[in-house]
Amino acid sequence: MKTLCLAVAAAALAQSQVTYDHLLRADPKNWLHYSGQYHAQRHSLLKQVTTANAHQLSAKWIYHVDGARRLESVPIVVDGVMYVSQPNEVHALDAATGRLIWEYRRQPALQKGPNRGVAVYGHRVYMGTPDAHLVALDARNGSLLWEVEIAKASDGYWSPAAPLVIKDKVIMGIAPGDHGLNGFLDAYDATTGERLWRWHSIPRPGEPGNETWAGDSWKTAGGDTWLTGSYDPELNLLYWGIGNPAPDFDGDVRKGDNLFTESVVALDANTGKLRWYFQFTPHDVHDWDSVEIPVLVDAPFNGRPRKLMLHGDRNGFYYVLDRVTGEFLHGSPFVQQNWAKGLDPKGRPIRVPGVIPSFQGTKTCPATSGATNWMSPAYNPDTGWFYLVAQEGCGINTKSRDTFRPGGNAYMATGYIESPEEPWQMYVRALDLKGKLQWEYKQINSRRYGAGVLSTAGGLIFVGDDQGFLTALDAKTGKALWHFNTGRQISGQPISYEVNGHQFLALTAGVNVVAFALFDGK
Amino acid sequence: MKTLCLAVAAAALAQSQVTYDHLLRADPKNWLHYSGQYHAQRHSLLKQVTTANAHQLSAKWIYHVDGARRLESVPIVVDGVMYVSQPNEVHALDAATGRLIWEYRRQPALQKGPNRGVAVYGHRVYMGTPDAHLVALDARNGSLLWEVEIAKASDGYWSPAAPLVIKDKVIMGIAPGDHGLNGFLDAYDATTGERLWRWHSIPRPGEPGNETWAGDSWKTAGGDTWLTGSYDPELNLLYWGIGNPAPDFDGDVRKGDNLFTESVVALDANTGKLRWYFQFTPHDVHDWDSVEIPVLVDAPFNGRPRKLMLHGDRNGFYYVLDRVTGEFLHGSPFVQQNWAKGLDPKGRPIRVPGVIPSFQGTKTCPATSGATNWMSPAYNPDTGWFYLVAQEGCGINTKSRDTFRPGGNAYMATGYIESPEEPWQMYVRALDLKGKLQWEYKQINSRRYGAGVLSTAGGLIFVGDDQGFLTALDAKTGKALWHFNTGRQISGQPISYEVNGHQFLALTAGVNVVAFALFDGK
Repeated sequence: MKTLCLAVAAAALAQSQVTYDHLLRADPKNWLHYSGQYHAQRHSLLKQVTTANAHQLSAKWIYHVDGARRLESVPIVVDGVMYVSQPNEVHALDAATGRLIWEYRRQPALQKGPNRGVAVYGHRVYMGTPDAHLVALDARNGSLLWEVEIAKASDGYWSPAAPLVIKDKVIMGIAPGDHGLNGFLDAYDATTGERLWRWHSIPRPGEPGNETWAGDSWKTAGGDTWLTGSYDPELNLLYWGIGNPAPDFDGDVRKGDNLFTESVVALDANTGKLRWYFQFTPHDVHDWDSVEIPVLVDAPFNGRPRKLMLHGDRNGFYYVLDRVTGEFLHGSPFVQQNWAKGLDPKGRPIRVPGVIPSFQGTKTCPATSGATNWMSPAYNPDTGWFYLVAQEGCGINTKSRDTFRPGGNAYMATGYIESPEEPWQMYVRALDLKGKLQWEYKQINSRRYGAGVLSTAGGLIFVGDDQGFLTALDAKTGKALWHFNTGRQISGQPISYEVNGHQFLALTAGVNVVAFALFDGK
Repeated sequence: MKTLCLAVAAAALAQSQVTYDHLLRADPKNWLHYSGQYHAQRHSLLKQVTTANAHQLSAKWIYHVDGARRLESVPIVVDGVMYVSQPNEVHALDAATGRLIWEYRRQPALQKGPNRGVAVYGHRVYMGTPDAHLVALDARNGSLLWEVEIAKASDGYWSPAAPLVIKDKVIMGIAPGDHGLNGFLDAYDATTGERLWRWHSIPRPGEPGNETWAGDSWKTAGGDTWLTGSYDPELNLLYWGIGNPAPDFDGDVRKGDNLFTESVVALDANTGKLRWYFQFTPHDVHDWDSVEIPVLVDAPFNGRPRKLMLHGDRNGFYYVLDRVTGEFLHGSPFVQQNWAKGLDPKGRPIRVPGVIPSFQGTKTCPATSGATNWMSPAYNPDTGWFYLVAQEGCGINTKSRDTFRPGGNAYMATGYIESPEEPWQMYVRALDLKGKLQWEYKQINSRRYGAGVLSTAGGLIFVGDDQGFLTALDAKTGKALWHFNTGRQISGQPISYEVNGHQFLALTAGVNVVAFALFDGK
């Protein structure tokens, strides 16, 4: 009988509409955006699970996504209903029990992956697809409302990022940059799917920044937008990280700073016009995408309250910017690095000569996979610290001469191997606002990327690793308080939500969604 | 550090050798055979988990088998190491943590499935394969020791059953019967893989029983052996259920009783010679394989202690036989059925005329999928009851004229559809020795087969269903005490074992192995 009652409840809950007011609000019971809230702090205000009882967490349900290669999406939870995606699929689940409510499968079931998640608004669910479409589903039953083409899949484009809904717009990034396809950021009408604006991440001739590309190199320049950005409703500015220039490892054919690759950009959400930008790695030759999520924090800095942006970059540096103006406030390395002597007063790296890919290979730290990557960071307002997943290690980076070939072929000019001198090792690191290391947690046996972190008001940091462990750390000390083996590599960031008075933790792990809570099985 | 210590411990444990004495013993800490012990009662003597605390069970770890379609195997546990199979693969896991110790993958990775499990002996692990081979692996590291061909895969044969090891022999069944391929049961030398005997389930000309096949029909007769049987060491008799005759639905072309299809046979384990047989459904035309596991129980029956065999058959009847002689002692239906008026004093069904497949379709209860099937039953010596999973429902059975085509083509002469009048519904039922219903538990929303049952000395019955729920029932009342949603259809029977003083429950569910216990996560 219990099961039947829950099914009825879930069907009723699936009727909930999500208003823009709701999207703006800190609503700890739900997980409404890829990064939790617009500020992307990934900090849940729920505190039923604490440092004192985290060891009593137990798995409450598992949902297995048939045919998945590996899930990398972040679940969205609205009033007891969870939406989980994989390429061309959305599954709506009862968030209390894991029971399926509806399932959407799109044809053709092209498995170019991953898919990082959906967005919700009104009674619609939005998702990008492997063939670069944006689809809108009815949240109540999974039926298709409309779909629009974002870019030509035949050119090689695809859409792994979770959309971000702002007012009546669906903001949508694109991939990949490694194929020499130029990136952009789009806004679509949330009701009709009509495209409202497009901002090109590679300036065209006559546009400011085009001069940072030698010759015609801007035409096959990369600069994709494959992760989800953040948003400041007061400033009405959208913050988005831009990917690497192409060809990745051969800078000779694209001399210049190569704007706006390896930058964060602030766009007017209404028009898509560029307000400011900050470039982390001018003229990058290491494939150090700067798509890492910009985290928006209001806090005193150097003696006065400021609207800040925190950013851990794949290039190994942690940055603090003024998010109103883009002013550089601070930068310091959070891993060992050998490519920059430091940053100048404007935040521009002072290069170490010779640490660029060569035909015979050049040792470069961090490696091309980066000091961090798609794994979301978090900010805990109680500790005032920034938490991120960091990889220590170096690569031997090589270059070659490459030729752009249209149709989705890699345009990378070779790549890298792992340096045998410094084996790769993953850590969770807590930094104060000035980038000072407060503690680190070594992820045992983890040499490759797992997933990002979740901070909770219970004083906990949750993190998954490539060995399949979900671990709860004390946010103040980094001490491991609990772990659970989910069975295979975790590539999805944890979330938290509340149903029926119980705080849940959930994440995608391998081909499963797994949900945890404290209460017993009754 | 914890993780490292466990890995070392697991490596040490993986050295354990399994002796024949060990296989004979009731060893509650381990799960050494497909059905737990030779008597196949599936009753664990562990009692840390009880009716009073079952609601506190929580999932301790998940192991996800990459690329699995759905797992149907029963894990084997030896001194803290768990062996789980899927077609052409064995995974050895730390049974306390789910961490992988080794993995064996065989080429070609033919996914003709399922695989129901492995057997262990010495430091070897045995498994049948989709191309009808028997492989022996080194239990310490998963390396291949030898493999032998059981039958020609090009004929259509394959080997889904878990092997059964008796003394120095590996007993191995074969599939399928539905393709008109004749079945057999083999014994292989556990050390060398040499075949020691073969018993043919379809008697050849000159052998007793061949006269029960009209004309040449014995040549394409079926009678496979696709589940694992049981064994009485005192009697040295092996008990095995035999599959259906071919073509399944057209009896006209194979007039006669069609021995030894739809029978249980008792074979001398040393020689493979037939000691006795009992045929549940002579001349079956409903595809009612009698492979269901024979459960061996020593108990008073009709006033005197007897060596019994209990069997719930796909034909809808529950049987009690004397397992020394094969004498029929009792038979009664455990589901609604419309095909037999009853059983005669020798246990032979008294047919209702006309309830046979017809060209236009004949309503038949139980349906062809059967009143029960591969789902293991259990016997609890404390209650003295037999527990099985039962399907209520009927089919519309049709026949056609079919022609045998060699090479693995179906030879079934059509089949059945679900009768719309009585929708299928799954139950767990508890029967006393005389077949009287003690209680039943309706598996909500479950209309199709899930998995079998496990009985424990804590007074519990564990059962999985096609909705993905693992449920703990009170063995005395059938009351549901706890359930857990594992995410997808469960097709594997639960087991129980003990590591480091903790009782675990585990099962394969969807593409995962999931293990449960009471203790907290510290």
